[in-house]
Amino acid sequence: MTSPEDQPDRPGTFITFEGIDGSGKSTQTRLLAEHLESLGHEVILTREPGGSVGAEEIRSLVLEGDPDRWSAETELLLFTAARRDHLERTIYPALDAGKVVICDRFADSTRMYQGLSRGDLREKVDKLHRLMIGTEPDLTILIDMDPAVGLARAKGRQTAEERFEDFGQELQFKMRHGFLDLAQQFKDRFRLIDGNRSVDDVAGDIRLAVTDYLA
Amino acid sequence: MTSPEDQPDRPGTFITFEGIDGSGKSTQTRLLAEHLESLGHEVILTREPGGSVGAEEIRSLVLEGDPDRWSAETELLLFTAARRDHLERTIYPALDAGKVVICDRFADSTRMYQGLSRGDLREKVDKLHRLMIGTEPDLTILIDMDPAVGLARAKGRQTAEERFEDFGQELQFKMRHGFLDLAQQFKDRFRLIDGNRSVDDVAGDIRLAVTDYLA
Repeated sequence: MTSPEDQPDRPGTFITFEGIDGSGKSTQTRLLAEHLESLGHEVILTREPGGSVGAEEIRSLVLEGDPDRWSAETELLLFTAARRDHLERTIYPALDAGKVVICDRFADSTRMYQGLSRGDLREKVDKLHRLMIGTEPDLTILIDMDPAVGLARAKGRQTAEERFEDFGQELQFKMRHGFLDLAQQFKDRFRLIDGNRSVDDVAGDIRLAVTDYLA
Repeated sequence: MTSPEDQPDRPGTFITFEGIDGSGKSTQTRLLAEHLESLGHEVILTREPGGSVGAEEIRSLVLEGDPDRWSAETELLLFTAARRDHLERTIYPALDAGKVVICDRFADSTRMYQGLSRGDLREKVDKLHRLMIGTEPDLTILIDMDPAVGLARAKGRQTAEERFEDFGQELQFKMRHGFLDLAQQFKDRFRLIDGNRSVDDVAGDIRLAVTDYLA
């Protein structure tokens, strides 16, 4: 992957998955990992927030408790700390070893969920990313889908971390369009996949996009 | 206190104490709080890292475990998250209510302990502070003292958070001079107090500096 000036180039490939809740990211990351392994790649499958021991502890601290436990700014700092740990302990070592890293959500999710949560925060999100993270994925798979369907799917799941999925349909619409705007802004690395189809059809398109990139 | 552009002016007074480990900060903050209360001020005595429920949890996460558990950057982000929470939940409400807030360590300690820990980190510390914190104290009491004496005192204490005090005399010298440089850089708010004297003498000088500022 290519890296910001204070980071070395690393031989591996860094692929992230983005999309609204219920868009099928975790299923599709798993299917892609299995496919790439069958082609002989060494693959690390990880997720955010979390993905390293320290980052998982920070994730718990952020996601448990009352929704107003942390302000938007504090939450943003905690997620950025978790991302930094995840990069240093999990992602960079795998990339240095030439592996393919597949990550369910990364900085684009912060741009959306924290950056769109309050009008004045998006600029801070971008500045903080440039200052403390810097790294961007080589390839970002955006699974685009109808927000109503995504919401219904997400609500069907029972998790201890529901507060991030408890914002309803209006937020899902806003997020969907936010992600589409991001895909325009970062055209080089984004691949837009239509998620309103069967799991197999979606998986097929993702395989094509990724093997095309790797070749 | 006066505030950065995105913060309202607040009627209270924000006083921080800085200095190397063992310089007597916790004793002197307590004595000053008692003195100001005896003069009729409403006083909040707090400390960093920590000072609010959320910040104390982050503090535990940072200070427990192996010394290399977090990288310098991750640690910096976690301390900044804790500071943001401390400001929002403890310091700003007290200042809004017109109280005097006395805080044992604040951003200047981060400038020293994180900013001096690695040559390239000080600039990041300053940029992160401007981006996510902004607030500076009205008054900073720097208790300056002989590093050898401070170290001996700090080593006499038994705490579960020893790793920050485990760097030895060289670091204490570096920190002392770093703090003196900061006092030059922020002349308006720093008051330099000679800590190489009896507790009463030091307390007397601090009272003078603070009552002079408040008047």
